[in-house]
Amino acid sequence: MNAADLAALLDVPLHGDGTLPVLRPCHPREARRPEDVAIAMDPALLPLLADSPARVAVVAADAVDAVPEGAVGAILGVGRPRLAMAGLTAAFAPPPPVAPGIHPSAVIEDGVVLGEGVAVGPFVHIAAGAEIGAGTAIGSHVTIGAGVRIGPNGLIHAGVRIGAGCTIGSHVILHHNASLAADGFSFVTPEKGSVESAKESGRVEATNQGLVRIYSLAAVTLGDHVEVGANACLDRGTLSDTRVGDHTKIDDLVLIGHNVTVGSHCMICGQTGVAGSAVIGDRVVLAGRVGVADHVTIGDDAVVAAGSGVGQSLKGRAVYAGTPAVERERAFEMLMLTGRLKHLFRDVKALKAAAAAGRN
Amino acid sequence: MNAADLAALLDVPLHGDGTLPVLRPCHPREARRPEDVAIAMDPALLPLLADSPARVAVVAADAVDAVPEGAVGAILGVGRPRLAMAGLTAAFAPPPPVAPGIHPSAVIEDGVVLGEGVAVGPFVHIAAGAEIGAGTAIGSHVTIGAGVRIGPNGLIHAGVRIGAGCTIGSHVILHHNASLAADGFSFVTPEKGSVESAKESGRVEATNQGLVRIYSLAAVTLGDHVEVGANACLDRGTLSDTRVGDHTKIDDLVLIGHNVTVGSHCMICGQTGVAGSAVIGDRVVLAGRVGVADHVTIGDDAVVAAGSGVGQSLKGRAVYAGTPAVERERAFEMLMLTGRLKHLFRDVKALKAAAAAGRN
Amino acid sequence: MNAADLAALLDVPLHGDGTLPVLRPCHPREARRPEDVAIAMDPALLPLLADSPARVAVVAADAVDAVPEGAVGAILGVGRPRLAMAGLTAAFAPPPPVAPGIHPSAVIEDGVVLGEGVAVGPFVHIAAGAEIGAGTAIGSHVTIGAGVRIGPNGLIHAGVRIGAGCTIGSHVILHHNASLAADGFSFVTPEKGSVESAKESGRVEATNQGLVRIYSLAAVTLGDHVEVGANACLDRGTLSDTRVGDHTKIDDLVLIGHNVTVGSHCMICGQTGVAGSAVIGDRVVLAGRVGVADHVTIGDDAVVAAGSGVGQSLKGRAVYAGTPAVERERAFEMLMLTGRLKHLFRDVKALKAAAAAGRN
Repeated sequence: MNAADLAALLDVPLHGDGTLPVLRPCHPREARRPEDVAIAMDPALLPLLADSPARVAVVAADAVDAVPEGAVGAILGVGRPRLAMAGLTAAFAPPPPVAPGIHPSAVIEDGVVLGEGVAVGPFVHIAAGAEIGAGTAIGSHVTIGAGVRIGPNGLIHAGVRIGAGCTIGSHVILHHNASLAADGFSFVTPEKGSVESAKESGRVEATNQGLVRIYSLAAVTLGDHVEVGANACLDRGTLSDTRVGDHTKIDDLVLIGHNVTVGSHCMICGQTGVAGSAVIGDRVVLAGRVGVADHVTIGDDAVVAAGSGVGQSLKGRAVYAGTPAVERERAFEMLMLTGRLKHLFRDVKALKAAAAAGRN
Repeated sequence: MNAADLAALLDVPLHGDGTLPVLRPCHPREARRPEDVAIAMDPALLPLLADSPARVAVVAADAVDAVPEGAVGAILGVGRPRLAMAGLTAAFAPPPPVAPGIHPSAVIEDGVVLGEGVAVGPFVHIAAGAEIGAGTAIGSHVTIGAGVRIGPNGLIHAGVRIGAGCTIGSHVILHHNASLAADGFSFVTPEKGSVESAKESGRVEATNQGLVRIYSLAAVTLGDHVEVGANACLDRGTLSDTRVGDHTKIDDLVLIGHNVTVGSHCMICGQTGVAGSAVIGDRVVLAGRVGVADHVTIGDDAVVAAGSGVGQSLKGRAVYAGTPAVERERAFEMLMLTGRLKHLFRDVKALKAAAAAGRN
Repeated sequence: MNAADLAALLDVPLHGDGTLPVLRPCHPREARRPEDVAIAMDPALLPLLADSPARVAVVAADAVDAVPEGAVGAILGVGRPRLAMAGLTAAFAPPPPVAPGIHPSAVIEDGVVLGEGVAVGPFVHIAAGAEIGAGTAIGSHVTIGAGVRIGPNGLIHAGVRIGAGCTIGSHVILHHNASLAADGFSFVTPEKGSVESAKESGRVEATNQGLVRIYSLAAVTLGDHVEVGANACLDRGTLSDTRVGDHTKIDDLVLIGHNVTVGSHCMICGQTGVAGSAVIGDRVVLAGRVGVADHVTIGDDAVVAAGSGVGQSLKGRAVYAGTPAVERERAFEMLMLTGRLKHLFRDVKALKAAAAAGRN
């Protein structure tokens, strides 16, 4: 690829010599060769271009003229830098980390159907009746349960566990050690227990005499283009599958409880947890470390700030923060007023003193 | 199984034709065949029965008469719906996802003792001297360390890691990729470090000149009927085992630190973390995303609400919430008053203005 | 080893018979044999020594005279008990749980370089071009990607996943199922999306029309003596590696996002999450369950209390707490004042009543 090819691929204007070869994008400080492409879309990085051996630079469209004279041989100016990063990194993305073909150590049980071009790494176990779509790559040490169906062009990284009966769409990416379809965490006491009494009266008036297991008979269904992060857990549904809609992205260490429904185009960031039977709409953003209580509903396009605790259902198309999560302005107001409490206590003390003095 | 068998198994009355066959329980909307059992214990689902092909329905005992006329051929009326779900799902639970016998790919070292009917999946590694009780099933890719003892009738799902020396009771279920007996997180600085100075004075008056490792010489002991969720971590003890009592259930992504003792019949919900040397009593419920500080004690039958941060020891048989966790009424009071701060600030402003006016 | 050897190793004075043999350290209550070493550095444990079969005890230096007469045959008195625990446990630490040599089931691809004495367990997969330093032990079911470089004397526990291209120093310990170099969680919408509008205006004025992936082209670099806990996740960088400095210790279930830089000698405790591109200084302590927002900076020697949410950059050498995290005194003040709100509301009510009465 050369600079002109890259400009065409990103659909951005090129300034300078389009024939310069390009090998990989990198931070201007980390460029080692003329063929490295220095990424300096942050204006603060522009001065580094003068000392960088890279001959091609990608900068913000309005910063093209600010590139030091003669620093590089070709400049690409991009309008929306983060979107350009998507294009740039896609252009140089490595192939999936699975060699073509079926590794001889893999254990593939009876009745498994592998589509054309499926790659299977060492020590993979695919149980009876599973179907893997064409072009899907399965990394080493993956477990795929009986009857699982995975669509085409997916990438299942090393150590992923997919329990029996799951349905997974096309172009899905599952990262290291993610767990699909472990059993839901669902127990009941024969008589009313401590949690039920706490919910009713706010007090513990009953003790848990025994915990009886509710089995999870359903599985997990993922739509197309879903991504699930490393060590994340999506648990089985009880009677109906736990579901995640198309294009939803789930980060590392996220927990999606049993029976949860997540819509499409959501972003669920790192270490967030969604408890059983919650319903998350479309295009919802749950920032990092959010907790969502069981059975609540979150409307389409809601944005929940990092660290929030969602205890009640939230309407869509609004920004929420805090524990319990409330609309952002309200959360900020409470925070701001709490920060000014010292002055309030002082004022009230003065008022009391004045009142006492007035009485004398 | 037919409807009468199912009614007998759940010990509930049957209305209608007991000879109707039953194949699997499902949501009324997802029933596809006459043999599906429509589960409609939530009254809101009753109208769906009319359009469902299912011929057998399970409803709340007081809703039997509300089932649409002729919608089904047999009705089971249950008194405590969630408990009925336990019975229903147990009746239709799938067999463990491990084929009988020892898979030829498994690596079983010298001196391992396998009880009768133990099933071992592909790519399992059982180190020297381990003992597995009769009827326990071990899924693919499981690692069992040297000298581990596992009781009978357990189910170890794919990818679980059990470090050397652990002791595990009977009927234990360990889910995908759970880690037992990784080393505790325990370090010390040669001289007093930043955390010690912070604990003493509230300020950082010392710097961490080096972190020296305290090794974990003990392991993890689990009682009978314990369940550990996917990607959960229970760390080794330093000198004595980290311990979890009988019938305690631990959810996905939970962290139980080194030297912790958890009593029996506890429920520790998703993403909760218990720091080193804490002591959790019997029948304690820690809801999701709770944090428990090191060395604190939580009394029997305590219920700690989701997202709470337990910084001090808590007495038993009470409900706690907030960070730091306090009794629920107190937590709610503070929350409610914080929500009314805006009015308080306004009132004080008015009082100040009135006082100022009075002085003129 | 005998008591005198142990005293020499810990560099502490010995009182009594140095020839007594020592086999393993344990809690006084758990000692079973004369050769057990009773660890009673906590003065509360001293009375237990009388009933313990152990003949050698380790106690605090100032408690030597408080050991019950004749309870043991030799006493070691230590000055800094927790540091002594490091020495004691190191002296009795078990060997790594990997048998010497290369297990025949391991899959080692072309061009892999194994240093002298490298141990490789069953079902390990080492991809092409990886280099493993002398003396490093690799537990069962580990995945090591193409071109990974691991220094000498490391210990990689079972189920660890190391993505292609990572660089790992010497004496590194990676615990069960830790994930290195899963892809960063990085997406962009073609047009301005909900999060961008929320950051600008506090409201959701745009919807996420599509989520385009930013690929992670870089990997993870760990310094020497780094430790990573079970099921922890350290994600790849986008253009430059995510980096962790020498001697930094990371606990279980921690998430280190893409492009993050962590300094040396840090302690990052259980379930903490650091979002993308944050910069953590040297000797920083993040206690358990801390959240750190993307792109913030935390200065050297900062200590952040458990459960805090760091939303803004923090200066070094100070103690922080709360969400959002502020200096500890400030956090405690707000907490204390919030706890006294009930009285404040009462006072203001009284002042209002008095003012109203005064007006009449």
